[in-house]
Amino acid sequence: MSQTTTQQGDDAAAAGPTGALDLSRLTEPVEAVDSYLADFIARRPLPANLRSAVEYALLGGGKRMRPILTVRSCEAVGGKLKAALPAAAAIELIHCFSLVHDDLPAMDDDDLRRGRPTLHKHTSEAMAILAGDLMMGLAFEIVGTCITRSELATAVSRELAIAANDMIAGQVYDTLPNFDEATEPLERLETIHRHKTGALLRCACRMGALCGGANAGQLDALTHYAEAVGLMFQVVDDLLDVTRTAEELGKAAGKDQAQGKLTYPGLLGVEASRGEVARLRTRAHEALATLENGEEGKREGIDALRELCDYMAVRSN
Amino acid sequence: MSQTTTQQGDDAAAAGPTGALDLSRLTEPVEAVDSYLADFIARRPLPANLRSAVEYALLGGGKRMRPILTVRSCEAVGGKLKAALPAAAAIELIHCFSLVHDDLPAMDDDDLRRGRPTLHKHTSEAMAILAGDLMMGLAFEIVGTCITRSELATAVSRELAIAANDMIAGQVYDTLPNFDEATEPLERLETIHRHKTGALLRCACRMGALCGGANAGQLDALTHYAEAVGLMFQVVDDLLDVTRTAEELGKAAGKDQAQGKLTYPGLLGVEASRGEVARLRTRAHEALATLENGEEGKREGIDALRELCDYMAVRSN
Repeated sequence: MSQTTTQQGDDAAAAGPTGALDLSRLTEPVEAVDSYLADFIARRPLPANLRSAVEYALLGGGKRMRPILTVRSCEAVGGKLKAALPAAAAIELIHCFSLVHDDLPAMDDDDLRRGRPTLHKHTSEAMAILAGDLMMGLAFEIVGTCITRSELATAVSRELAIAANDMIAGQVYDTLPNFDEATEPLERLETIHRHKTGALLRCACRMGALCGGANAGQLDALTHYAEAVGLMFQVVDDLLDVTRTAEELGKAAGKDQAQGKLTYPGLLGVEASRGEVARLRTRAHEALATLENGEEGKREGIDALRELCDYMAVRSN
Repeated sequence: MSQTTTQQGDDAAAAGPTGALDLSRLTEPVEAVDSYLADFIARRPLPANLRSAVEYALLGGGKRMRPILTVRSCEAVGGKLKAALPAAAAIELIHCFSLVHDDLPAMDDDDLRRGRPTLHKHTSEAMAILAGDLMMGLAFEIVGTCITRSELATAVSRELAIAANDMIAGQVYDTLPNFDEATEPLERLETIHRHKTGALLRCACRMGALCGGANAGQLDALTHYAEAVGLMFQVVDDLLDVTRTAEELGKAAGKDQAQGKLTYPGLLGVEASRGEVARLRTRAHEALATLENGEEGKREGIDALRELCDYMAVRSN
């Protein structure tokens, strides 16, 4: 286990051996994913206004956390970046589709996303509904047309569909809750997040692993990594909502609390939530350590996943 | 070519050799498709309210035109009904997703669908958006999990994704038009319908053909059949909008005209539109005749497709 995993709950723990977080390695695959997405959208025959709407929502920034996970998971089992690009592009399409629909007036009714007007504010509600639908469909079109080996394309498409559907179920659990009354709040919260955020992050890693030719043990290790990181991501998101301002976040802050939503800080308090972040980070590191024992694990990809986990633990937007 | 194709533009042409349209054969696959869909939705882990919303939108009637085309196209090339069920279920999910989103207040703002309140009226806008999203995702989940041969699953998934995306583009062409001003109205109308309705009907037949193990010639013949039937379907739809009452249609009538939409009767007049229906019916019959020359064509499936075409030419809702 690396040195960083022992410094739980301390922001400095995210720093590498030299004390500084190597952000360049974190964001390295972003350019490749963005070009791949831009090319695909440019080539796809579409009405001009629909293409613009998709480009606005898809290519207007964003952390690209999910495609980075896909690319790095592919590399962590010995695959090349290029092999992961269709799946990486697809997962970002699914993520962006969900943001566009979640922002709609009938849903979260958000005016601001990534520091800019949300798509329905920039265009219209009808266009935002349709562009969101299209982004979801394009994810499957990319997988079906750009992954040439059909066994891999089917496996990736299956992972993607199940995760997208779990994510949608998570949005219902979150915004239109319908739980059995006996369900404990913490259990409800975990159900929400395992679906709403966790499913897609898990899928990002699993698809990357599949594209890299992972064996069963490697796929398991990356799944465990992703499950820990996915839950951690959400605890951090909840923490940011209560501790940061809208300016820092690039979107409305304090909304969860104002809407009386279940959150980790709301249920556990801020300090215990931070402890949960540390615990989950350790679990993610442990999963990666398992992977390192595998013969085919590739150190650079694994290191990038560890740094990504650490960055996600201390991110501020 | 069969006798019926010579009686163009005459409703009686839809009748079989005995003079009566055999509706039982048209709807024969519906029960199998409906059970398949109901079983899949019942088994899929989902929040109870989301499951109910999907069941309401998906299992509340509907002509099942697309899944019938899938099943019959499969049979027409020698495949079994069972082989076509995942694809048939998937295409109906895509169709129903599009209806739910098209009905939303920001889109067509319809209160009535299949004689019942639309999903957003029955539940809420947020639920209708999410249930629509889910139905689209479930289509790909069915294909990815229920078609076991990965080469076939990929081919079907690819067809489905491209068609769904073309359909969404068609909805933009129709409701948020953005044509080059030089484009002629009839060309615009054909672009709209080739995307909005045509893509999915074409896909229904092509997926069925693939599931039935079609060779290239059979796939071509069924594609030509579907393209003719798809355009015909829309001309008939436009005609129904001007000639039928809401009660007969089970949805609002005369809306196209009231909204100043491009329609075939609006551009060509009612009589010339009826002539177009007859011409397209002949083209569809001719495509089927090509198929009959193939060694592996199966007469029952082909006869059912011919009757379906004839029914679609004279349908009243």
